[in-house]
Amino acid sequence: MRIAVDAMGGDNGSKPVIEAIKEFKKVYPDDEIIVFGNKEELNELSSICEVVDAPEVVPMTAGALEVIRMKNSSMCKAINAMKENGYDAIVSAGSTGGFLSAATIVLKTIPGVKRSALVTAFPTKIKGKKVVVLDVGANNENNAEELVQFAYMGKAYCQALFNVEKPATYLLSNGSESHKGSPLVKETHELLLKNNFEGFKGNMEARDVLNGDADILVSDGFSGNVLLKGMEGIAKMMSGMIKANFKKNLWTKLGYLHVKSGFDNMSETMDYKSVGGAMLVGINGVVIKAHGNSDAYSFKNALRVAHQMVEYNVVNKIKESLANG
Amino acid sequence: MRIAVDAMGGDNGSKPVIEAIKEFKKVYPDDEIIVFGNKEELNELSSICEVVDAPEVVPMTAGALEVIRMKNSSMCKAINAMKENGYDAIVSAGSTGGFLSAATIVLKTIPGVKRSALVTAFPTKIKGKKVVVLDVGANNENNAEELVQFAYMGKAYCQALFNVEKPATYLLSNGSESHKGSPLVKETHELLLKNNFEGFKGNMEARDVLNGDADILVSDGFSGNVLLKGMEGIAKMMSGMIKANFKKNLWTKLGYLHVKSGFDNMSETMDYKSVGGAMLVGINGVVIKAHGNSDAYSFKNALRVAHQMVEYNVVNKIKESLANG
Repeated sequence: MRIAVDAMGGDNGSKPVIEAIKEFKKVYPDDEIIVFGNKEELNELSSICEVVDAPEVVPMTAGALEVIRMKNSSMCKAINAMKENGYDAIVSAGSTGGFLSAATIVLKTIPGVKRSALVTAFPTKIKGKKVVVLDVGANNENNAEELVQFAYMGKAYCQALFNVEKPATYLLSNGSESHKGSPLVKETHELLLKNNFEGFKGNMEARDVLNGDADILVSDGFSGNVLLKGMEGIAKMMSGMIKANFKKNLWTKLGYLHVKSGFDNMSETMDYKSVGGAMLVGINGVVIKAHGNSDAYSFKNALRVAHQMVEYNVVNKIKESLANG
Repeated sequence: MRIAVDAMGGDNGSKPVIEAIKEFKKVYPDDEIIVFGNKEELNELSSICEVVDAPEVVPMTAGALEVIRMKNSSMCKAINAMKENGYDAIVSAGSTGGFLSAATIVLKTIPGVKRSALVTAFPTKIKGKKVVVLDVGANNENNAEELVQFAYMGKAYCQALFNVEKPATYLLSNGSESHKGSPLVKETHELLLKNNFEGFKGNMEARDVLNGDADILVSDGFSGNVLLKGMEGIAKMMSGMIKANFKKNLWTKLGYLHVKSGFDNMSETMDYKSVGGAMLVGINGVVIKAHGNSDAYSFKNALRVAHQMVEYNVVNKIKESLANG
């Protein structure tokens, strides 16, 4: 298995990426990592993986054209090398828009796929169960045919990653009633029924996404992004409040000792870093977007997701799912 | 001040409404309450307010036409009586869609208003500061002209309720860059700039809504609903986890004693019940939608919001804001 890594694009530079690769190689020594970035900075990796010098750094605000024009950037070189050498996967913590669009342009969508989608898994109330949500931000707007394809791609992803045979699939809406919602939701709902989409359970309000009923939630890219980031924002705010409560004085610190393990579990459940990264599905190859401010732990999890996706052969599963749909 | 109350529509029947009115009257003895519902159930209120017999209960799934057809329902009678008698405000915990649409049809939008919008205030990281968000669910889809009107209506609401002279106004988007977003966001952004909308600060990601920078967040009804309910869902899940952590055993219960006051403050900040209700702006009159499963505390807060909105003359402020915009 060969995984290309853009070491430079994230908010925190190459340092967490270096740590992440070292840790990852301990668990998966047979995976071949090809890392792109400033050769001097990456020197200590040269004993365990191939280092390709690509000193330019794509800015966080860059779009696809800027990425493609920056031929010596770590991101552009990694994407092009994946195409030329047929690497199995690529991981980057750089500009979301730039990375996803440039990867789509260079690596191309799977034949028949109208739009790629960014997919990730949210924690739920049920211990160990996650809900697969797509699109969480690859698209600014979508039509009903694209959402139906997202359902098929989400199914393949869910089956590969969580081994759920008939995933319960819902459509994100502003109410649970089947005949209500935006015009886009209504049309998509009709199409999924018409296609006899196996496991389609109807519409779901944002309030119920984490209650554990859904295996897959299908959404247009704009609303999915609002859902993901809105939840991230409030979870971060509440976590901050919890920490502040425990830090107040000696008594609250003592109180914390009694409940530490419970709150550590909770932090782990809620932490997006443990999810590791979102996959761009619908592309020829495994394309993983790590969080922009990934630390070593988070980036290692993104590498692990890449490994799992290649291992489960998710790209072929998506092709099959679309062909049978 | 005269406030019409639908006592029957909520999930919990008339009991919490009766308690809420009793408490409310202690604080605002001069407000006249006209309460609609089953006369026998509401008997104990007859000494402090006018009780109008309206025994039928609008189901939670009812749409506008069903509400208008149910002439003897508490919701329909309350809306019609508000129109006929010129009451200042109406409060209901019944079917959101049915109540908002029926109120719009009967009471009519303010001349020039294209669409009414549901507005509420979210807590932020900054103590005591709230962010006004609209539309959180009155509309299934909106166009750019409607979103611009929402900005003007939000401004009047924010000025009335929080006394902010030049509220910082943002547009909900999938990124903070001014030239990005959905086609709707791009068009609205352009229009707000063209109108020289005072206080317009640009686009905001869902992740940053609670950080305290924004006084007003403008959104289409579908995305705003996803944001509100998504945040509500995860806040409820995290609160449940916190409670479970403290209930585990004697040691965790002891731990709780040390941090109780902090967590009580946090619960109050995060509790949608303390917000009390969302207002439908753009209508002739103060229309307040209380949460479907309101308890007495929550419904009393909805009554308080109604009182404040009438006191601040928010309907006229909206007319002025639109006329000057």
